[in-house]
Amino acid sequence: MPSGKSNAVIGQSGGPTAVINQSLVGVIEELHQHAEIDRILGAKHGVRGIINNDFIPLNGVAADLLERVAQTPSSALGSTRDKPDEAYCVKLLESFKKNNVGYFFYIGGNDSADTARIVSEMAIKEGYPLHVYHVPKTIDNDLRTTDHCPGYGSAARFVALAVMGDDLDNRSLKGVKIDIIMGRDAGWLTAASALARQGENDGPHLIYVPEVNFSDDQFLADIDRVYTRLGRCVIAASEGIRYKVGDKNSLVTEKAMQGGEVDAHGNKQLSGTGALGDYLSEMVKTKLGIPLQQKTGSKLRVRADTFGYLQRSFPGIVSSSDAHEARLCGRMAVQYAIAAPEGLSSGSVAIKRVSEEPYKADFFPTALTNVARQTKPLDTGFVVNGCDINSAFIRYARPLVGPLPIAGRLF
Amino acid sequence: MPSGKSNAVIGQSGGPTAVINQSLVGVIEELHQHAEIDRILGAKHGVRGIINNDFIPLNGVAADLLERVAQTPSSALGSTRDKPDEAYCVKLLESFKKNNVGYFFYIGGNDSADTARIVSEMAIKEGYPLHVYHVPKTIDNDLRTTDHCPGYGSAARFVALAVMGDDLDNRSLKGVKIDIIMGRDAGWLTAASALARQGENDGPHLIYVPEVNFSDDQFLADIDRVYTRLGRCVIAASEGIRYKVGDKNSLVTEKAMQGGEVDAHGNKQLSGTGALGDYLSEMVKTKLGIPLQQKTGSKLRVRADTFGYLQRSFPGIVSSSDAHEARLCGRMAVQYAIAAPEGLSSGSVAIKRVSEEPYKADFFPTALTNVARQTKPLDTGFVVNGCDINSAFIRYARPLVGPLPIAGRLF
Repeated sequence: MPSGKSNAVIGQSGGPTAVINQSLVGVIEELHQHAEIDRILGAKHGVRGIINNDFIPLNGVAADLLERVAQTPSSALGSTRDKPDEAYCVKLLESFKKNNVGYFFYIGGNDSADTARIVSEMAIKEGYPLHVYHVPKTIDNDLRTTDHCPGYGSAARFVALAVMGDDLDNRSLKGVKIDIIMGRDAGWLTAASALARQGENDGPHLIYVPEVNFSDDQFLADIDRVYTRLGRCVIAASEGIRYKVGDKNSLVTEKAMQGGEVDAHGNKQLSGTGALGDYLSEMVKTKLGIPLQQKTGSKLRVRADTFGYLQRSFPGIVSSSDAHEARLCGRMAVQYAIAAPEGLSSGSVAIKRVSEEPYKADFFPTALTNVARQTKPLDTGFVVNGCDINSAFIRYARPLVGPLPIAGRLF
Repeated sequence: MPSGKSNAVIGQSGGPTAVINQSLVGVIEELHQHAEIDRILGAKHGVRGIINNDFIPLNGVAADLLERVAQTPSSALGSTRDKPDEAYCVKLLESFKKNNVGYFFYIGGNDSADTARIVSEMAIKEGYPLHVYHVPKTIDNDLRTTDHCPGYGSAARFVALAVMGDDLDNRSLKGVKIDIIMGRDAGWLTAASALARQGENDGPHLIYVPEVNFSDDQFLADIDRVYTRLGRCVIAASEGIRYKVGDKNSLVTEKAMQGGEVDAHGNKQLSGTGALGDYLSEMVKTKLGIPLQQKTGSKLRVRADTFGYLQRSFPGIVSSSDAHEARLCGRMAVQYAIAAPEGLSSGSVAIKRVSEEPYKADFFPTALTNVARQTKPLDTGFVVNGCDINSAFIRYARPLVGPLPIAGRLF
């Protein structure tokens, strides 16, 4: 670099969240505090903007607009599903060199952390002075090392509110209701449905996560048991629930969709379709319709909703602790990139839970290899009998989601 | 009736809304003000509770619990899909006589107004002094006579927020996104998606309602046009969109579901399934996948979400004008039932828009025959080119939905 100053690039990647812009604004605000930084460049649509030299200048953005952006869901810079290989990363580094970029902040999940790792290692090998910091973001809450992920609390809040409302609806007009919740491999978000419960017979009455093998027979037996007792049953099921066949897992939704689309990371497309909910719903109608009608004397009503993209993009109901932490993760990324604590001039920001009551969190830097690629499944210690979530999870998740409205009931 | 005093029964019917309990609490509060009323009885699950003598005593409910109930979505007394015939109404009247009921308040849609009408006419024929008032409620906004329906504003607010968030999501990760919105016969709720737009290229870019004949070819041509211009397309479509075949209408979802379930009112079950969204999504992938990939150079990403029951039950995001009016409709029903203005000792409460800017509404009583049975479709004067909604509708709907958050954008 010609002078002591260099430019910083910020990008956003993967599925957006309701607070990913809090992190973006946190990075921008903190960059303004440091004399080492010259220009601040927003990469449009993540790594794709970097290789296409498609940047938004961010130095002069007014504080009130920045604050409005922070409170707006979805990635304000645009996002991408591109998963760079070595050749793609060579182009990233070329762009950084050409643009005198000394700092790269990438807000995303484990795939983005891996991109950050590859670019960072490549820069070290070539002796180019580049500080790369990953800012964690995912509604799936599946990043390793960190206690929880920015974006999770707000999505979990949406799920808890949605299931609470849906359970009240189901109390009013009884039946079997199946709610399909995002989470391809990890059940964290589906588990958050348990926060909806306030009274003993409140739903969700059954919760199914990808970490526990799914069985049609057990599922039907569970519903039969709940419905026979309460005359209704609200179910939260992850889009990623799967059968175990021999040593292999197979997604229930795959059976429901007979094939289905695969994304650039080789992941099966599960969201943006109602197939799984409709499939489970049909199974319940076919297998339990007549026996439950005989038991209860009334026709079995079965419905399914797939919460879909609203879980990550619905405006105005963010968790305030999530918004706060997402902002701070952005700021800490810049501080770590500049100060390089414990020699980590590149790394990822992680959250540590310092105290439970009152909830208090702190931040620490961690190596990119501790976050990249592999993910963290839901701890199966939180799962009860394969179809419920325990109070230890509630204690874990409640401060991340924030206080929920208390339902008024007349019976 | 032995003394001058008689008892009042309140019931809730049909699909719940986010503010149906505001009306319930409005009725209770106002009944407390009138010496004519002795006991206040809440019918559990609507008319079903009346014939089963299953009542909740409501006189002694504490004010703070009542206020909490008012703010809780879904029917606190329980609801029903029962559509009473003459024989059923005979039983209702018997229950009223046995319980010394002189006032019956039924909170519901056009079917509930029809039940109120039958019972009221039956009581007159038998010389039994019964005042029956229907309190309007429906997210569909399809009741005749009234300017709009309590419950609509909050559901429309959910839809506007959901589509706003979804459009931001789609800006970030581009593609074709189809959102399926409730409304079997009326497009009012789907039209409310237009409120999501803040800038020129904001979605929803295409809006389809049941009042306009749906055509696959036109639908595909519309998407092709928008996608070619913007590289993305957000679509709001009603669950009730239909083809016209000769003189007959046929639901698109029927083709999607090949059959499907019918409810007690003879209505086809459209909610609680993702079939329509998946069907349209598949059509777009199959017919436009290759041509649009050739035009734009990138793979076409198509997703569908069906908003489902969240539209009527999601807690915490009610429209404050809707909540206010729902409460007042309950209070006015009691006042009208007791004072019998214009001879209407039975009737329905309707809303009149008194001024537009600032928005101001007033209430008036109307005969049950003006509300019962038939519904009011979306005025097709609000529809543009069969695939959009105009600014006259925005002026109509905005005060009912209330102010929405303003998205912060960087490009």
